[in-house]
Amino acid sequence: MSILIQNGTALLPSGSSPNTSVAIEGSRITQIGTDIDPSGFDTVIDARGQLIMPGLVNAHTHLAMVLFRGYADDMALQPWLEEMIWPAEAKLTPEQIYWASLWGAVECIRGGVTAFCDMYIHMDQVGKAVEKSGLRALLTYGMIAFEPNEKMEKEFAISMELIENWHGKADGRIQTAIAPHAQYTCCDPVWERSIDIAKERGLLLNTHLSETRKEVDVCIKDSGKSPVVYLNDLGVFEVPTLTAHCVHVNEEDISILAEKNVRVSHNPGSNLKLGSGIAPLPEMLEAGVTVGLGTDGTASNNNLNMFEELHMAAMIHKGTHEDPLAVPAKQAFDVGTAGGYQAIGVDEGGVLQEGALADVILVDLEAAHLEPVYQPLSALVYSAQAADVRTTIVNGQVLMKDRKLLTLDEQEIRTKINEIAQDYRRS
Amino acid sequence: MSILIQNGTALLPSGSSPNTSVAIEGSRITQIGTDIDPSGFDTVIDARGQLIMPGLVNAHTHLAMVLFRGYADDMALQPWLEEMIWPAEAKLTPEQIYWASLWGAVECIRGGVTAFCDMYIHMDQVGKAVEKSGLRALLTYGMIAFEPNEKMEKEFAISMELIENWHGKADGRIQTAIAPHAQYTCCDPVWERSIDIAKERGLLLNTHLSETRKEVDVCIKDSGKSPVVYLNDLGVFEVPTLTAHCVHVNEEDISILAEKNVRVSHNPGSNLKLGSGIAPLPEMLEAGVTVGLGTDGTASNNNLNMFEELHMAAMIHKGTHEDPLAVPAKQAFDVGTAGGYQAIGVDEGGVLQEGALADVILVDLEAAHLEPVYQPLSALVYSAQAADVRTTIVNGQVLMKDRKLLTLDEQEIRTKINEIAQDYRRS
Repeated sequence: MSILIQNGTALLPSGSSPNTSVAIEGSRITQIGTDIDPSGFDTVIDARGQLIMPGLVNAHTHLAMVLFRGYADDMALQPWLEEMIWPAEAKLTPEQIYWASLWGAVECIRGGVTAFCDMYIHMDQVGKAVEKSGLRALLTYGMIAFEPNEKMEKEFAISMELIENWHGKADGRIQTAIAPHAQYTCCDPVWERSIDIAKERGLLLNTHLSETRKEVDVCIKDSGKSPVVYLNDLGVFEVPTLTAHCVHVNEEDISILAEKNVRVSHNPGSNLKLGSGIAPLPEMLEAGVTVGLGTDGTASNNNLNMFEELHMAAMIHKGTHEDPLAVPAKQAFDVGTAGGYQAIGVDEGGVLQEGALADVILVDLEAAHLEPVYQPLSALVYSAQAADVRTTIVNGQVLMKDRKLLTLDEQEIRTKINEIAQDYRRS
Repeated sequence: MSILIQNGTALLPSGSSPNTSVAIEGSRITQIGTDIDPSGFDTVIDARGQLIMPGLVNAHTHLAMVLFRGYADDMALQPWLEEMIWPAEAKLTPEQIYWASLWGAVECIRGGVTAFCDMYIHMDQVGKAVEKSGLRALLTYGMIAFEPNEKMEKEFAISMELIENWHGKADGRIQTAIAPHAQYTCCDPVWERSIDIAKERGLLLNTHLSETRKEVDVCIKDSGKSPVVYLNDLGVFEVPTLTAHCVHVNEEDISILAEKNVRVSHNPGSNLKLGSGIAPLPEMLEAGVTVGLGTDGTASNNNLNMFEELHMAAMIHKGTHEDPLAVPAKQAFDVGTAGGYQAIGVDEGGVLQEGALADVILVDLEAAHLEPVYQPLSALVYSAQAADVRTTIVNGQVLMKDRKLLTLDEQEIRTKINEIAQDYRRS
């Protein structure tokens, strides 16, 4: 299967390049230039008036929570979790998670998201949905075990089943990781065994880290250490680790994250909406931390719109730092693309260059909210909407062409998801 | 001309109401109910699967600056203004401002903006564009006069010409105001005469206020007063006043704004992007200040997307206050609609009720980033995009139906705006 994308404005590592064509053979970008002969390609896509760029990566989400988008808003964290979200999740069936994951996949593809990291339950169903959708994903099961007991053994059994069944599947589009849920929900033995598993199998370790002030204060009170220091002292960061949030991290924490090459998923929307705070993105980038962007679950966002996260990542820190030079468009773009791929352990994605994975999206540049376009990168980061995405390609397969989905039946999934939602509506 | 909007989910003051119809006769909403006979209406619009709501108000913008969207980004404020924006604006011709205003109107209509407050130059051209587009607007010319000299006389002459020519025009869709640009750009005589003009003619006064920390510090250093106190002591707030920004206001300032019923346009996007800071929206609302939302000019935003401002207004303050209960969806919605109409002095707009002005938009609720919809208001504020707007009605006239513009030739305006932009491109 070969594809030629013609005559678009390409966002190359060297900058934006007009009238550019991108050739794809199999799962890779094989050629980029201004004059590539279209004959012999299976598919030729005209990208006139469109931006050609790497797909966006959602480095931290709980995809099936699309079922709970807007289910409960404007509540304090504890009642929101205890009275609304946890009881609803307790009712979730594997079949519901399958359909909800497909619905989340539809939103990803429509919004130009080519890869994501998911941490949820019944991950087997998420795996099936990812396989069908054509997306790329790092799948993880969030283990919770306060004590080294039977529950802990059960959590590891579930994780190992996910890893055995899904690691490297779907032409390599699916990877897995070992995932202790968080420092405050897992006892030391969970971390110790997770480190061993990650080392033995060459896996990433995925976890939540320093999301709320309370979590950090409790850890310091109990151990005298911040969660970052606590996990570092346990040796967690000796294995490649992807952490979500890092909102409440100090200078010492940041230097540890940088030194140990811990990857961070910055999730501005969720952190704002839950009142967690604002992560020090400029400081983390300055220190050399590898950062990607994520939406978190849609119950706290309320969508999988990575254009919003890109926009917020570029805007918020300018305001909080009272510095218009904080997080310029190029930096936000790198975090949303290459940074995300590095964060989920896919180092060959996230850039338009020969040999890179063919995860590519086409974005309309002809719209009243975008023209005139003086700087394509600026138009993308500061003006574009998710709805401007026209075409989404993952691993050399076209998942959406001119806004028509090719791998999923949107109407069937919509009908199903609205049926399922009836079970959760409060009368 | 009569319109019946049928079978939509209406956002009424009492809450969201399914299967609801809204009847419009002339420029007013005449009936709202679940069972209105469609016979006899000139136009019947099926709003199945759509939200029926008041249009959004952009309470502070410089519409024609769409010509400079993305023209210069990621720069410090002074070089941005002095090296890029001001030299570009100095080249602007009246004809360019006419076409740029039409292009801005296209973005407004597509994004569900039914009314806006504009402060710019060559306002006669903006008036012509507003008249043609069908939008509602408060038009103001920003006067700058550091001394009571000939320049000041010229500024007032330009303002009076705008007021004489355009106040109450276009079936009353166009109102005007007297507009000293800001405390730091106008000498006392400008304020004194502006107060007299506003009183004599029953006009609003429109100005920028406490946008940057520097502006406030300089005012305190020179006068011992904050800009709010300074203008209040001059008697400015004795006339109905609409101010933009109010980012750096303290408790005393806020109590003055509330007590004198000064209306504030909160412009989160522009304040973030320029590094000005984050206005204390929750505190202003708590104090009872009338607040609307605005984008400011697109050179500092970079769009006229009020869905983004609505989203940011609801999200940012939760994060900065570490309080998930700050600015709930309903409050953000009220600020973006009714608050905006009050801000621009149009008290009969911004709510779906009988007798109100027929400024109404229809927003798709059927989309992968919106469904399932448990709470329509939540879907609008936390999940929707400007591209979800299907139909825009202003003063009882349909300006866009099912995303087709009815008053403006988008392609003609696009061609023109891209031609004009060539004059501003740097080689």
